[in-house]
Amino acid sequence: MAKAVTSPPKGTRDFLSLDVRRREFVGRVIREVYESHGFTPLETPAFERLETLLGKYGDEGDQLVFKIMGRGQQLVDGVRKSAEHLKEEGAITVGRSGETAPGLERLLADMGLRYDLTVPLARVYAEYQGKLPPVFKRYQIQPVWRADTPGKGRFREFYQCDVDVVGSSSRVVEAEVAGAVAECLRRLKFDRFQIRVNHRAFLRAMIEVAGVPLEQEGEAIIALDKLDKIGASGVDAELEKKGLGPEARQKLLGLTTPGLDLAGARALLGDHAGGLAALKEVEEVLALGALGPAGEHLRFDPVLARGLGYYTGTIFEISVDDLAGSLGGGGRYDRLIGMFLGKDVPACGFSIGFERILVVMEERKMFPAELAAADVLVAATHESRLGDALKLAYQLRALPRPSTLRVDLSPGAEKPAKLRKTADESGAKAAVWIEEDGVFHAWLRADSGTRDAVLSLEALAIKL
Amino acid sequence: MAKAVTSPPKGTRDFLSLDVRRREFVGRVIREVYESHGFTPLETPAFERLETLLGKYGDEGDQLVFKIMGRGQQLVDGVRKSAEHLKEEGAITVGRSGETAPGLERLLADMGLRYDLTVPLARVYAEYQGKLPPVFKRYQIQPVWRADTPGKGRFREFYQCDVDVVGSSSRVVEAEVAGAVAECLRRLKFDRFQIRVNHRAFLRAMIEVAGVPLEQEGEAIIALDKLDKIGASGVDAELEKKGLGPEARQKLLGLTTPGLDLAGARALLGDHAGGLAALKEVEEVLALGALGPAGEHLRFDPVLARGLGYYTGTIFEISVDDLAGSLGGGGRYDRLIGMFLGKDVPACGFSIGFERILVVMEERKMFPAELAAADVLVAATHESRLGDALKLAYQLRALPRPSTLRVDLSPGAEKPAKLRKTADESGAKAAVWIEEDGVFHAWLRADSGTRDAVLSLEALAIKL
Repeated sequence: MAKAVTSPPKGTRDFLSLDVRRREFVGRVIREVYESHGFTPLETPAFERLETLLGKYGDEGDQLVFKIMGRGQQLVDGVRKSAEHLKEEGAITVGRSGETAPGLERLLADMGLRYDLTVPLARVYAEYQGKLPPVFKRYQIQPVWRADTPGKGRFREFYQCDVDVVGSSSRVVEAEVAGAVAECLRRLKFDRFQIRVNHRAFLRAMIEVAGVPLEQEGEAIIALDKLDKIGASGVDAELEKKGLGPEARQKLLGLTTPGLDLAGARALLGDHAGGLAALKEVEEVLALGALGPAGEHLRFDPVLARGLGYYTGTIFEISVDDLAGSLGGGGRYDRLIGMFLGKDVPACGFSIGFERILVVMEERKMFPAELAAADVLVAATHESRLGDALKLAYQLRALPRPSTLRVDLSPGAEKPAKLRKTADESGAKAAVWIEEDGVFHAWLRADSGTRDAVLSLEALAIKL
Repeated sequence: MAKAVTSPPKGTRDFLSLDVRRREFVGRVIREVYESHGFTPLETPAFERLETLLGKYGDEGDQLVFKIMGRGQQLVDGVRKSAEHLKEEGAITVGRSGETAPGLERLLADMGLRYDLTVPLARVYAEYQGKLPPVFKRYQIQPVWRADTPGKGRFREFYQCDVDVVGSSSRVVEAEVAGAVAECLRRLKFDRFQIRVNHRAFLRAMIEVAGVPLEQEGEAIIALDKLDKIGASGVDAELEKKGLGPEARQKLLGLTTPGLDLAGARALLGDHAGGLAALKEVEEVLALGALGPAGEHLRFDPVLARGLGYYTGTIFEISVDDLAGSLGGGGRYDRLIGMFLGKDVPACGFSIGFERILVVMEERKMFPAELAAADVLVAATHESRLGDALKLAYQLRALPRPSTLRVDLSPGAEKPAKLRKTADESGAKAAVWIEEDGVFHAWLRADSGTRDAVLSLEALAIKL
């Protein structure tokens, strides 16, 4: 027999026990907070019809969707058509990011793995609208898959953790999602974080006021969004490279004024009605948010842009003082649901960076220690006492306590010294073993070193 | 805008809030029991390399693996080769179950969706053996995918819920997995269930004793396994149809003797050493199992066969008195790990039928009522009081109680009558609203009908 390749596929991870417990710990805190805020859980299938996914994330996103191959006759037909397609097109261009002609993929595949949790939410809302409450508040914590080049902290399978409200355009919604996310981070013991707030319509208004052609809006906003990394002069250089004149650049650079507040932003807008309305919305979000846990964390950030095309109103991003990158983000997207339902429905949500939070909590040792080991190891020192050890394990498992004891049992005979060592190293609270004469002995972890003792089950129960 | 197709893909389901809560309720009970039994959690990626999956589940299983299409140049090359392949083979046979030439799929796909949780366990054990304890006890609750024809209770995406012990051939292991599974079912309030026990080597011995040619072992065992459905005479007819002579049939039918116990089974074996050793193992499993929660549920079933080819020793299946089909099953498989590791390692496990349990619990109304709704709905009757409603919601969420209150907030102004109605119908415990004058009112669910009241927050806290 030869050993097979047994590593997990590229860009994916196996989660052994401590990993799973840490992921569950974070997931549980987030779930509890979302539940307490009146959000309800949703789970959707791992794969969606290809037409549900494609065309929602831009061309690059479409390429990153993992496609599931058609089956049976469907596949044979697909291969025949693909072969003709290849013959007609001659050599198909395969670019640096590995894209193939999308036509080819659509001939061979019929479904794709979930790329995010927002498109499935939009599909679900369109499908079950009649069954759902008029204001649908849902959270969803599930993996998503992207055929990206894996790198440090970038995976092909990773969890997203979304909270969204569909069906209301009230600013209370922005306050509720920001409040829920802030409460999650606080309960996980993050304290020094900011939730930066901006508004898409304000940015668009600034582009107009600066006289930048609308087709350059995207480029200009991306340049501004780099302020943190390259500074105001870097932004200026980028804008110049994009062909923006000095007057337009100067107007846009007004946004980078240190400490620019809402009043300052208003002054930059002049009398641009759309821009002023957007800033009024930001003001309301800040005021309502201040009533809850997001309060001290919210701050206006006039250059915050957020990449995704589907945001239409308020946008959010979480940053932590001494940490590069973000811990999550979100915003209002009033037109995505319409792509499925056939009519627009307002929506606003927030996505917490689940994987990033795990990495930071691990680096900073923010996890409780008791996630690690079994509480008690039970064993017999002789085969003939295995049945007694099994009975003892069941008695310990049935002990009434605030939470159930995790009791591990060695299936074969064990030497006490080895058992004590295993228990000590694993972080277990105790090891209990039955010797050949039927007497049971226990080792208990103690701050002042360790000790062995002969104890009754009752005495053990008190100590555990 | 046109409405898109928004149903979940064929054979998959969207889980709305009550569904998710019920699934989580069952999952939580199972996890707690497995943890208390010293099992540790494992999670593996949704997809595996195609070569990890194929060849483990038989030809039919291979066909049912969802394949993920190769990407970029890999796909273009795959299509070119597939086209040549099709040309050489002429028409590829596509049979009734929709199978294509496996060669075609291997050219186009590089990965497949997880088909069960046992093969990933074997891969993980082979990969991390050095990091894992010598006796590795793991549980895993994750979805699996099969490109099966969907039907009543048969899905293309469904959860499995496995508990396995790798690295010990002690009978204590069988007792531990059966005990853990029995405890799960008991905590979920199933009581009248049996865990039927048999042994592969006993069945094989009976085949030998009956003089059935080894190549007919599979057919004969499948016929015996149908005893419950078609009775002894039906089994006899099936065996005759397979060409078994009267003497062989009579010997095998001895297994169908009503109430056949271990002594009776021994008598059928004569002096077949392998068969007798297998029955001794069954006896030990029953004796050790009797010491724990599986005790009264275990019983020897001499015709139990279990479909999967990889079992080598004890086999289990759970049945419920008034329920067709099984709630789960398992057994010992001492050779599967070897396919990955290059050397055999003993293993034994149990899989609970998660989806089936959910269906039965729903039909029998075994779920606690409080899974359904938010605890409190909060609202303002006028826009100007929305901020106060938000503050009130946060105060309620922060109330110290055994578990956090689930507090939902209406983002816009609400009429009290509508709010009370929504709360009543959703099963919420209370609705609280702030009127324009700032006074807050509450509706509380009461067994003797409902009533409105003006309450202080403190009074409300006491009542909730």
